[in-house]
Amino acid sequence: MQRIAIYPGSFDPVTNGHIDIVKRGLNLFDKIIVTILHNPAKKSFFTVEERLEMLENSLKKFPNIEIDVYNGLLVDYGVKRKAHAILRGLRALSDFEYEFELALMNTRLNSQIQTVFLMTGLQWIFTSSSIIKEAARFGGNISGMVPHFVNQKLKEKFDSISDSI
Amino acid sequence: MQRIAIYPGSFDPVTNGHIDIVKRGLNLFDKIIVTILHNPAKKSFFTVEERLEMLENSLKKFPNIEIDVYNGLLVDYGVKRKAHAILRGLRALSDFEYEFELALMNTRLNSQIQTVFLMTGLQWIFTSSSIIKEAARFGGNISGMVPHFVNQKLKEKFDSISDSI
Amino acid sequence: MQRIAIYPGSFDPVTNGHIDIVKRGLNLFDKIIVTILHNPAKKSFFTVEERLEMLENSLKKFPNIEIDVYNGLLVDYGVKRKAHAILRGLRALSDFEYEFELALMNTRLNSQIQTVFLMTGLQWIFTSSSIIKEAARFGGNISGMVPHFVNQKLKEKFDSISDSI
Amino acid sequence: MQRIAIYPGSFDPVTNGHIDIVKRGLNLFDKIIVTILHNPAKKSFFTVEERLEMLENSLKKFPNIEIDVYNGLLVDYGVKRKAHAILRGLRALSDFEYEFELALMNTRLNSQIQTVFLMTGLQWIFTSSSIIKEAARFGGNISGMVPHFVNQKLKEKFDSISDSI
Amino acid sequence: MQRIAIYPGSFDPVTNGHIDIVKRGLNLFDKIIVTILHNPAKKSFFTVEERLEMLENSLKKFPNIEIDVYNGLLVDYGVKRKAHAILRGLRALSDFEYEFELALMNTRLNSQIQTVFLMTGLQWIFTSSSIIKEAARFGGNISGMVPHFVNQKLKEKFDSISDSI
Amino acid sequence: MQRIAIYPGSFDPVTNGHIDIVKRGLNLFDKIIVTILHNPAKKSFFTVEERLEMLENSLKKFPNIEIDVYNGLLVDYGVKRKAHAILRGLRALSDFEYEFELALMNTRLNSQIQTVFLMTGLQWIFTSSSIIKEAARFGGNISGMVPHFVNQKLKEKFDSISDSI
Repeated sequence: MQRIAIYPGSFDPVTNGHIDIVKRGLNLFDKIIVTILHNPAKKSFFTVEERLEMLENSLKKFPNIEIDVYNGLLVDYGVKRKAHAILRGLRALSDFEYEFELALMNTRLNSQIQTVFLMTGLQWIFTSSSIIKEAARFGGNISGMVPHFVNQKLKEKFDSISDSI
Repeated sequence: MQRIAIYPGSFDPVTNGHIDIVKRGLNLFDKIIVTILHNPAKKSFFTVEERLEMLENSLKKFPNIEIDVYNGLLVDYGVKRKAHAILRGLRALSDFEYEFELALMNTRLNSQIQTVFLMTGLQWIFTSSSIIKEAARFGGNISGMVPHFVNQKLKEKFDSISDSI
Repeated sequence: MQRIAIYPGSFDPVTNGHIDIVKRGLNLFDKIIVTILHNPAKKSFFTVEERLEMLENSLKKFPNIEIDVYNGLLVDYGVKRKAHAILRGLRALSDFEYEFELALMNTRLNSQIQTVFLMTGLQWIFTSSSIIKEAARFGGNISGMVPHFVNQKLKEKFDSISDSI
Repeated sequence: MQRIAIYPGSFDPVTNGHIDIVKRGLNLFDKIIVTILHNPAKKSFFTVEERLEMLENSLKKFPNIEIDVYNGLLVDYGVKRKAHAILRGLRALSDFEYEFELALMNTRLNSQIQTVFLMTGLQWIFTSSSIIKEAARFGGNISGMVPHFVNQKLKEKFDSISDSI
Repeated sequence: MQRIAIYPGSFDPVTNGHIDIVKRGLNLFDKIIVTILHNPAKKSFFTVEERLEMLENSLKKFPNIEIDVYNGLLVDYGVKRKAHAILRGLRALSDFEYEFELALMNTRLNSQIQTVFLMTGLQWIFTSSSIIKEAARFGGNISGMVPHFVNQKLKEKFDSISDSI
Repeated sequence: MQRIAIYPGSFDPVTNGHIDIVKRGLNLFDKIIVTILHNPAKKSFFTVEERLEMLENSLKKFPNIEIDVYNGLLVDYGVKRKAHAILRGLRALSDFEYEFELALMNTRLNSQIQTVFLMTGLQWIFTSSSIIKEAARFGGNISGMVPHFVNQKLKEKFDSISDSI
């Protein structure tokens, strides 16, 4: 039996922490679908296209990965994609509550799809896309926290913002 | 002595978790005033009028309930309404901190009015108005989490939003 | 209708934080039964008799208080005593989880008896019987954290312990 | 590729929450080895033999399950058993910290074996072997929280204890 | 050796809790630079100029204090100001996670500057600038939580807001 | 002015996390007194003499360090040693609550001595003396978590224990 997991997120942008979860997940699943949850009502820093490009660039070396975008109910998407599991990385405490709430809601909506939590590696536990953006905004050196390609895209984006002011 | 409690909240919309707290509270108090705290500065999903209608519809079967709207300092309202207690439902961890902060502030502003916490039933511990709205937005089946009437109103609201896009 | 609450605990010894909860509870209930949960399997610092004496001395000025000892299932005791509620003081975070676990278990065993949480006053939030004993052991000044009578009993107890070494 | 997970614990006794995790795990793994971690230095309520008997009785209806006992380093055991993952159930907050500490230590000792967390079903989130024993001790009705066979064993055990007093 | 600490924050407005941290910090450092982190992208209640005025008024009685504004990477600022430490007040739990995340990011960006946490006095543990503003908005008595001058500024600000509606 | 800090603990045994805190503390204080709190009522794994030897061996390369043992009230000891501060390492969440409780008690007993928290480096956040002992007990490789000398002492100790069985 082929086991498929969805790894959903906003990936705004993808970090080394996300990539760490993908690597760990590939030991457990035959295929991982990394899915940008696109909610047009929520503002993002990078466009969906930019996020797709960064994910593709960062994950091209891994086998059995598919990258996708979805706008809708996660469990419906899971059924459509024949997924056995929703993969989530657990970082620190504040994640935990929100993840529980989300996982319970998804279980209520569809009890067939399991939420599987993997623990992010120690070095990513307190690192998030948002704090990385905060550091990058002021020129902080964030190499080692994001792939090289993402680092460049962050610089370009912040340069274009400051140019426009 | 008649004991009166205020049960304040945004009720945007009222959920089965809120109704569970009202039921439990009626074992302890002679009257419960369910009060929509209306802060014009904060955006809500439903209007005050819609929230009132949903509360009235959902709570009409309970005796000793009054429904009200207030815009101001909760402890001033408590004094005006001759309340002995502010009733709050405790869900999970993240509530706890905020509830403590709020209860301490209210105690400082008026030490006569006690904050009383009841624990939401197990099935509501990780359910909130906001996660219910997120599920309803994409057509998730949330019957069993909100009263039937609220379920309909959520559908109508989301239909009217998507129509207008 | 007369509303009765049980306030269970080990009270080893009673602190000003406990007394604060009793005071707050008397605004909500017509009678509070302060009950030492006596588990012969668990070691306590003070004997049941000493704890009873300290509770009686500390609470004698309050009306509508009864002091009792119980060894058994709390909800059975609640039924026997015709209680509407189990009263618990919430201090800080670590309490919260344990209290939830306990309250849910009690609700499962008997859904008629409500657990009611009151927030301990700010000055008691991080104070527990055990940390008070730790300070008293080495002669720390704990007046203001426990009633005068309890302070004396702690001194006597620690004196008798060090004498016997 | 056959994927094997170890599900370690003290199972003192096994609860419906544990069984729920086994069920969920069987959707993700081809085989689950349920392993009693036997630490002779730690006191348990049931003997290893009793715990084994209860696990066998409770899990006999599931395919692809093996029950075992181990006394040593979990990651060494994992290597010996050719396991891909250590399976753990996440209940509430207090679990989370300890589980993180443990998972990180195991990753440091052997980075090949992944810790996989599944969320216990809502009804088991605040239920633990220890609180079930506390309720059973005083005759509380815990059917629905443990398998029927375990319920009987708990009664027998507590009866034999009270007889011997 | 002269030891210098930066005490960064939004101080929107400064509270007695902040002043308490400054006082405690002066026992440990020879000089404290209280720095308003000014992020033009984030909305504040008071302008930078108003916040500066309130800080100056509230801290003028303390020696060895400098007040400053900065817009950029905190660790760069620390280097420029020859600071040994970043001073932070710990209030309650929710602070803790965010503070950890921030401190770790700062350590990664510059490992020479230490983050030092002082615990806010008990009376400020659950009090924040935002809850004080919420109370002040509706005329709650917040004297004792902020300096007299800040109290007045809050009143003026809210009066001017309601006038303009 | 010379600034002195006490760094109290059980150090059973000292870990690389403790040493990390000492190093960080030496940037802030002119002298650090590392003090084993010796409570004869509490069982320890290593004797006081063994713990002293390990601390001395591990800290001999640092200047301005003194190692001591104390049995009594920490704040009394602080006064005797003319300390300005009690230094504590913050690891993860569970520490936080206990540290707050302790720091508040110490502030009540003597408001002159400040508790200063430093954050343990990321690699030590979820590592404790007790989990290291658990791993060492079964021969887990804990080099990198404790100094070499401590690693040897742990091996000797566990060897002598298993010999005696």
